[in-house]
Amino acid sequence: MKVFVLPSGFAGGDFVELGGEDFHYLCRVRRLKSGDSFPAVDGEGNGYHLTLEEAGRKSCRLRVQKKGSPRRGEEAITLYQCLPKGQKFDLIVRQAVELGVARVVPVRSRYSVPKIADEEGRLRRWHRIARQAAQQSGACGLPEIPAGISLADVPDDFGKHPGGRKLGIFFHQNPLAISSLHGYLSSIPEEIALVIGPEGGLSDEEAGFLARAGFVPAYLGHRVLRAETAPVFAAAAVRIILLERERWSLADGT
Amino acid sequence: MKVFVLPSGFAGGDFVELGGEDFHYLCRVRRLKSGDSFPAVDGEGNGYHLTLEEAGRKSCRLRVQKKGSPRRGEEAITLYQCLPKGQKFDLIVRQAVELGVARVVPVRSRYSVPKIADEEGRLRRWHRIARQAAQQSGACGLPEIPAGISLADVPDDFGKHPGGRKLGIFFHQNPLAISSLHGYLSSIPEEIALVIGPEGGLSDEEAGFLARAGFVPAYLGHRVLRAETAPVFAAAAVRIILLERERWSLADGT
Repeated sequence: MKVFVLPSGFAGGDFVELGGEDFHYLCRVRRLKSGDSFPAVDGEGNGYHLTLEEAGRKSCRLRVQKKGSPRRGEEAITLYQCLPKGQKFDLIVRQAVELGVARVVPVRSRYSVPKIADEEGRLRRWHRIARQAAQQSGACGLPEIPAGISLADVPDDFGKHPGGRKLGIFFHQNPLAISSLHGYLSSIPEEIALVIGPEGGLSDEEAGFLARAGFVPAYLGHRVLRAETAPVFAAAAVRIILLERERWSLADGT
Repeated sequence: MKVFVLPSGFAGGDFVELGGEDFHYLCRVRRLKSGDSFPAVDGEGNGYHLTLEEAGRKSCRLRVQKKGSPRRGEEAITLYQCLPKGQKFDLIVRQAVELGVARVVPVRSRYSVPKIADEEGRLRRWHRIARQAAQQSGACGLPEIPAGISLADVPDDFGKHPGGRKLGIFFHQNPLAISSLHGYLSSIPEEIALVIGPEGGLSDEEAGFLARAGFVPAYLGHRVLRAETAPVFAAAAVRIILLERERWSLADGT
């Protein structure tokens, strides 16, 4: 069984009572029986060992044993995703979480959708998608998706976010600098921000603003990627370069 | 305007007459006028310069000037994708083509869907998706999607494919060897095959068979990826490592 993600209401304790979707998933889909044990994480990334105590008709009761600290060796990636059209954000959330993004922040930018219609409903939907994706992929902790912010607030938001050595990267269709992801990531940052534009990309003013705020420009090749493919490419690129960090070094003269 | 992909029926010549979807796209969506010029490629990757001569009500006539040879500096990637359930192959085709995969081969494997229902219809659909994705992303040439083959035929199929230095990689959920994509790709292969399992992955027998046939195992981290996310991760990983090939070298001792 893959890692189960405890509901956001879980606040610690030796037992937890689960109903609704969670009950359905554990007792109907996974068909767990009393005494069965499995691993779980909470929204903070803490690990647990759960044991099914008792299954009723509509809910079940589980014993909770806390394990050690959050899984190590995974850098925290925040995806600042400018709002694309239609339902594309759904696919972005799902694939980004599968690729290990810990936080997806919806961003309003010059060429993005100006505002999220029914933001509360959409956020609930994205939380549900993120939770399913985390559960299925064995992600560490429940991915965070806060309410949308404007691009002008991205540097502050990333700056306020707790964490160690930070690296903010924005992706641009033109190779703005003689730079490479390998170069940026050679320092082994602990907190990484990826800023991805909407269908129309980031404007030159926005790229300039991010650069002045300390974000570095990256380039994913000359192909035009769809709004929903660019974040997957960016997250996958960062992930493979860090996963194989011990196997490469920067070439001479870079 | 992005690069236009000439229909597969185009067999050279100084003029081409286009109707249907192509006419609609050029004259209605892009609203080209007589005299407008734009770049195009054919299924072989040859570049052209097209000029709209005359637009009728249902078709248009274009002048064709051939440009130089196919775009250089892009390795040819073939994705051997074991058939996942449902409509997932649609998304895989679209994203793989955006990421520069030149050939997507549907593969039947131990845990895959056993056969493609209405294969002709599905192939037509995938060709349409591939063509749209190629057009939108400025891909070089029309991606090829042949009829499905069985996993046992993958090494032969890749061996027969024309091209230079070849590298076949299969992706496995367990780290089978002390290997890395950086290590494999440091030789700068010209033809690359990526073999990706279905939902249930490749069986141990299949992995053994591919290894004996000269394919090398790669590992994308401990996360469980969905069948439709694994090929995107693999293609993106290969692409970024090759794109930045001049910027890294193998670490000592690897």
